[in-house]
Amino acid sequence: MIEAGIIGGAGYTAGELIRILLNHPEVNLNFVFSTSQPGKPLYSIHQDLIGETEIEFTNGINIEVDVVFLCLGHGNSKKFLAENQFSETTKIVDLSTDFRQKSDEHSFVYGLPELNKEAIKNANFLANPGCFATAISLAILPLSKNGLLKDEIHVNAVTGATGAGTSLSQTTHYTWRDNNFSAYKSFEHQHLDEIGQSLKQLQPDHDSEINFIPNRGNFSRGIHATAYTKYVGTLEEAKEFYHNFYENSAFTFLTDEELHLKQVVNTNKCILRLQKFGNKLLVTSVIDNLLKGASGQAVQNMNLMFGLEERMGLKLKANYF
Amino acid sequence: MIEAGIIGGAGYTAGELIRILLNHPEVNLNFVFSTSQPGKPLYSIHQDLIGETEIEFTNGINIEVDVVFLCLGHGNSKKFLAENQFSETTKIVDLSTDFRQKSDEHSFVYGLPELNKEAIKNANFLANPGCFATAISLAILPLSKNGLLKDEIHVNAVTGATGAGTSLSQTTHYTWRDNNFSAYKSFEHQHLDEIGQSLKQLQPDHDSEINFIPNRGNFSRGIHATAYTKYVGTLEEAKEFYHNFYENSAFTFLTDEELHLKQVVNTNKCILRLQKFGNKLLVTSVIDNLLKGASGQAVQNMNLMFGLEERMGLKLKANYF
Amino acid sequence: MIEAGIIGGAGYTAGELIRILLNHPEVNLNFVFSTSQPGKPLYSIHQDLIGETEIEFTNGINIEVDVVFLCLGHGNSKKFLAENQFSETTKIVDLSTDFRQKSDEHSFVYGLPELNKEAIKNANFLANPGCFATAISLAILPLSKNGLLKDEIHVNAVTGATGAGTSLSQTTHYTWRDNNFSAYKSFEHQHLDEIGQSLKQLQPDHDSEINFIPNRGNFSRGIHATAYTKYVGTLEEAKEFYHNFYENSAFTFLTDEELHLKQVVNTNKCILRLQKFGNKLLVTSVIDNLLKGASGQAVQNMNLMFGLEERMGLKLKANYF
Amino acid sequence: MIEAGIIGGAGYTAGELIRILLNHPEVNLNFVFSTSQPGKPLYSIHQDLIGETEIEFTNGINIEVDVVFLCLGHGNSKKFLAENQFSETTKIVDLSTDFRQKSDEHSFVYGLPELNKEAIKNANFLANPGCFATAISLAILPLSKNGLLKDEIHVNAVTGATGAGTSLSQTTHYTWRDNNFSAYKSFEHQHLDEIGQSLKQLQPDHDSEINFIPNRGNFSRGIHATAYTKYVGTLEEAKEFYHNFYENSAFTFLTDEELHLKQVVNTNKCILRLQKFGNKLLVTSVIDNLLKGASGQAVQNMNLMFGLEERMGLKLKANYF
Repeated sequence: MIEAGIIGGAGYTAGELIRILLNHPEVNLNFVFSTSQPGKPLYSIHQDLIGETEIEFTNGINIEVDVVFLCLGHGNSKKFLAENQFSETTKIVDLSTDFRQKSDEHSFVYGLPELNKEAIKNANFLANPGCFATAISLAILPLSKNGLLKDEIHVNAVTGATGAGTSLSQTTHYTWRDNNFSAYKSFEHQHLDEIGQSLKQLQPDHDSEINFIPNRGNFSRGIHATAYTKYVGTLEEAKEFYHNFYENSAFTFLTDEELHLKQVVNTNKCILRLQKFGNKLLVTSVIDNLLKGASGQAVQNMNLMFGLEERMGLKLKANYF
Repeated sequence: MIEAGIIGGAGYTAGELIRILLNHPEVNLNFVFSTSQPGKPLYSIHQDLIGETEIEFTNGINIEVDVVFLCLGHGNSKKFLAENQFSETTKIVDLSTDFRQKSDEHSFVYGLPELNKEAIKNANFLANPGCFATAISLAILPLSKNGLLKDEIHVNAVTGATGAGTSLSQTTHYTWRDNNFSAYKSFEHQHLDEIGQSLKQLQPDHDSEINFIPNRGNFSRGIHATAYTKYVGTLEEAKEFYHNFYENSAFTFLTDEELHLKQVVNTNKCILRLQKFGNKLLVTSVIDNLLKGASGQAVQNMNLMFGLEERMGLKLKANYF
Repeated sequence: MIEAGIIGGAGYTAGELIRILLNHPEVNLNFVFSTSQPGKPLYSIHQDLIGETEIEFTNGINIEVDVVFLCLGHGNSKKFLAENQFSETTKIVDLSTDFRQKSDEHSFVYGLPELNKEAIKNANFLANPGCFATAISLAILPLSKNGLLKDEIHVNAVTGATGAGTSLSQTTHYTWRDNNFSAYKSFEHQHLDEIGQSLKQLQPDHDSEINFIPNRGNFSRGIHATAYTKYVGTLEEAKEFYHNFYENSAFTFLTDEELHLKQVVNTNKCILRLQKFGNKLLVTSVIDNLLKGASGQAVQNMNLMFGLEERMGLKLKANYF
Repeated sequence: MIEAGIIGGAGYTAGELIRILLNHPEVNLNFVFSTSQPGKPLYSIHQDLIGETEIEFTNGINIEVDVVFLCLGHGNSKKFLAENQFSETTKIVDLSTDFRQKSDEHSFVYGLPELNKEAIKNANFLANPGCFATAISLAILPLSKNGLLKDEIHVNAVTGATGAGTSLSQTTHYTWRDNNFSAYKSFEHQHLDEIGQSLKQLQPDHDSEINFIPNRGNFSRGIHATAYTKYVGTLEEAKEFYHNFYENSAFTFLTDEELHLKQVVNTNKCILRLQKFGNKLLVTSVIDNLLKGASGQAVQNMNLMFGLEERMGLKLKANYF
């Protein structure tokens, strides 16, 4: 059994990790570290866990675990690792933005399995991608793989309220969010950096603009993204190289039918649809922001890092309706 | 024109009052007092008001207005009136709980027009009823009027998230409330006192228990209540004395059809439905908690206090879908 | 008083028209024609109208009314007018797509007041714009007015479920739509024609592509649209010519703050926000699809056609939360 | 491996069964019979199954399967079994109401494991309980077990839109249901019969009225029920006999904290909370109507009927937010 620890146990991504790991056949949840909740049972915060486990939050860390997941606010993972040292064999999966940009100062591998599967298998330190970055990168990576991103890319995506975290705020207040919709951080979302880095990895000459408008939707979970760009080939050719790119993917699939968000909610899947209109290729992409966009992908990466079957523990029943 | 002031201008009830009074043909909105927002335009908080008015919040009070509405937290109206004095002719409409219970210490009239219309017309100080109290009292007052409340009353009601006010809290966080439902304050809700007082006013020997379970619904506005009790007469008799009781009501109506909440959302109406099953009379009651349950009823009371047509300024387009 | 008739009274746009006209100070609702509901009271279908009116649907038409509103399915207005003739002085406001494209075969004026106010004032036959067309045209018309639409325009918009009409369908089934999101009719929405016609009216050399992705949101009312295109001037210049363009608008306003859909829900307003990023001008636009996008604009047009104050009967209380 | 077939594969309960059985370690999904969809892949209807399975709906039945689940409309199971015969060893689990009432004419066991576990283990024919019946019976059965149901029981429960099935209808139209609430079938819901039968099984002299008001909530999944009745003991005594009653339950748990619906959504659990007010015991009960209230409980029963661990295949990740 893989002994696993979680640092920062009270938020959404930690909650989802706990739910997955409790049922993972090869994992034992060794500890869940929380500075705010020590001594309380996990189900005092993650209240659906009544009857599932009697584990309590702890303020002590077992540095000998096989893997540790960092579910900390952006900027805090770096700080935490500077102050705490794990055993030499402990693998680290970080869910924050802190190590997503390649740098000489760290050896974290960017954990998008569809892009970096072999590197992930050998990684000891893994930077788990952002939710928007996952949805958008999966929509356009096959284009960059084929050197076809030569013009501006136009992306519009909408995320659920869990994307804003557990902190209370005006735009996650029920009476504000209910039946509402709004754009935010247009053209300036922080995930653009990750996406650019991944595109350049496959198409080094890539320097097209990505015009990205993120939106707040009045739902709890999921990301729905559309991306289009100029594309001279046929739709059939596009379908073929997308098919080839995702042939060995465990969770990313293509469809020819109308696509909607709830096809993936509460699963680790990404579903993509390709369409061509005039000289544009339109790709629609849907994921669950907390699973394929966070904790599910983290476990997928863990499976790869430990040589387990990639889908282990991740055959989740969708919450389709 | 009636010069009107509002004390405590940033919350939901103040917002609804402002929206109504700006379009009221006989009212001029003289000032909106807010200690937190002075100098800012009303539309900086009530952002739908862009293009409607350039009025700003003020931290000064005009004590010469004809009417002032107190939109303060429970307990704060009493304190505010102890510290601030209006002119002798200023009428006061208080939306808090502070003066709803009759007492020798104050001369506020309980402002449920269906119960106290004549007293309201002559009132200088008015205590506006609570939202649950309004929905439930209107459901059962005709029974007490006819001396028929002799057994326990069973009430279940659900309120929207605006009922919890503008303060951020876990149970109004979008990800918690969305697609959720929960009971709270069962058998102990603070509005039971008001309801009991009104019932006793019409049926002095009333001492039946009111078993009241309030619930949090995953919608923004409105209250849906069901109330039943033992009743020996026929349904037709009940319909007749309900009809008589509400004959001159401006906003309370009976229906024989299935009733649902959105029939009254964004209006000042209450709609009631009567049914009989075995020896029980079931009454269903729906209101908008912010209008008939708060600000709309406050303006209805103001209209009565100033001798205006009761529906003036309150012919609101429903938000039926 | 203006005597008004409505043809096709059971749908959403007819419902909204009825709600507005019942409270319009210069209008008498003369008849509501419905082939499916004759003899039933309006409130049997528009159930919020209990207590407001006892008018019944009729299957007879009064051809002498001053104005008639056609709330028929697309294609049916033409057919209806071929089979039914009104008096020579009856003005006709059609809410369908049938007469929105200029043609030698009819004399309908396209009823977007911000574009055609003078023509509307003199119109006897008026084609009321589509909801997406209204939201998008208002976002970009000032650019075409200044000859600045020289590059592709990128539009993404989301509409509420009322946009799909009252017919039951899979994508308006609650369990499908709840917490869901999906794109549809990408690059091919039928409103592109109207938009193109309006842009060409102000900028005859306009021939840029409009890349338009409409989406289904999980809310009931409203449209939120973002539109961007290349723009070489400064943001201040843009704000100035937008300000000039909308200076005399009764319902279209600019804001410098974050914009969200519920600022306009249940009102006849359009609010616009301008931002500049790199060489792109981004315009966000929000309307209520049933009011400024349909019935409210129809009444606004009626007011203009009859020389009334443009906002008469349209000072609606927002359903802000 | 247990070979399983499903009759009537296009509805919600069939969809949930398929999702569970595809991941059940001891089950092979042998066929999914559908008269409307033969030859189409399951994911053409249950569109979240893309990438999970290539199985197609069939219009042929394998009568040799080990277990068959009937997911047919009420009344149709009886008809189906009259027209189709399975092998002598095929066990039948019926999700309709057809066999829930004991009768000399059939040998179906009522499949509420908390009530009938031993009988279920030996059953060949099983009638799976209704959703409201499950939530309400689990709330009050320990009282009847202890002979304490001597007075009227007052039950109010709210169900999500999936409770109404996949058929399109006005009350499941998005624009109707969104932000709405309504009572229906008050005092007359068809599940009262099942509940009464179960109570009498434990307390043969039970003849108290159950006053039951079901409601339509504006959410997709789940049932939240409150039930109260006169009770003379202490709260601690009640907790003790509830604890004893559910000691060996695989999915039914007690909590002392505030309870809300999303603690159980997308799981097979029931959580109960006990409170005492005056002389009343109040029990709150929450389940997922499609899982513990339908397909999850069907699989739980199948596990018992085949001697498998009761929770096998049912360790589902909650959709807590």
